[in-house]
Amino acid sequence: MSENCIFCKIANGEIPSATLYEDEDFRVILDLGPASKGHALILPKEHAANIFELPDDLAAKAIVLAKKIATTLKEGLHADGVNIVQNNGEVAGQTVFHFHMHIIPRYKGDTVNMGWKPGELTEEAKEEILGLFKNA
Amino acid sequence: MSENCIFCKIANGEIPSATLYEDEDFRVILDLGPASKGHALILPKEHAANIFELPDDLAAKAIVLAKKIATTLKEGLHADGVNIVQNNGEVAGQTVFHFHMHIIPRYKGDTVNMGWKPGELTEEAKEEILGLFKNA
Repeated sequence: MSENCIFCKIANGEIPSATLYEDEDFRVILDLGPASKGHALILPKEHAANIFELPDDLAAKAIVLAKKIATTLKEGLHADGVNIVQNNGEVAGQTVFHFHMHIIPRYKGDTVNMGWKPGELTEEAKEEILGLFKNA
Repeated sequence: MSENCIFCKIANGEIPSATLYEDEDFRVILDLGPASKGHALILPKEHAANIFELPDDLAAKAIVLAKKIATTLKEGLHADGVNIVQNNGEVAGQTVFHFHMHIIPRYKGDTVNMGWKPGELTEEAKEEILGLFKNA
């Protein structure tokens, strides 16, 4: 646990939450400011600020759990689709610096705006990025 | 492989792509309409329309791979953050119906719009959703 981390306190039950699921490693709660009906958050009990700090085995368990939670939400709420979103860094929209995955059920005609404007993949950018991976 | 699935053809090398990484199970490519510099896609070689169809072991491998790719992109491109986004269903913004994970590096001042307007978690919705999981 990290002191003063609200998601540590929620994940470990020190602060009450609307808990959908809990096991040894995770707590899954309803977001209090939902993008849509059923918006849930997967919180590891162990503190990690972001995916870069999260151990691989917990990352793997988180996405398998996300699939299960998304399935129950989609079927139970008759949703038409689901976004799974995991933000790292303030610039990426992360507001609490404890790793979490958003499960956002989607409905025809909802007001969630999750798109982006497609840009262009320039030859220059492509070569630069390919170069990063050749050297990795 | 699924016939007429463009991501099956790309993942299996029938259609060329800017490939950052490849192994037995996955190909990672640069998105041709990037939200930001370094926008990459993780594609399983096996066809699954969405996360609901993807076997758990491949989902687990995909997120661990996403962490690795995101790390290389963030460090190599000096990004300030990263979004990991996985859309299921047309209403959720999915445009190719072969499971994929978006890795979107983020930069201060970029024009990617990944936010949502927070709604309210009503007591009624909360009870309904908690009920789904009590019965699950």
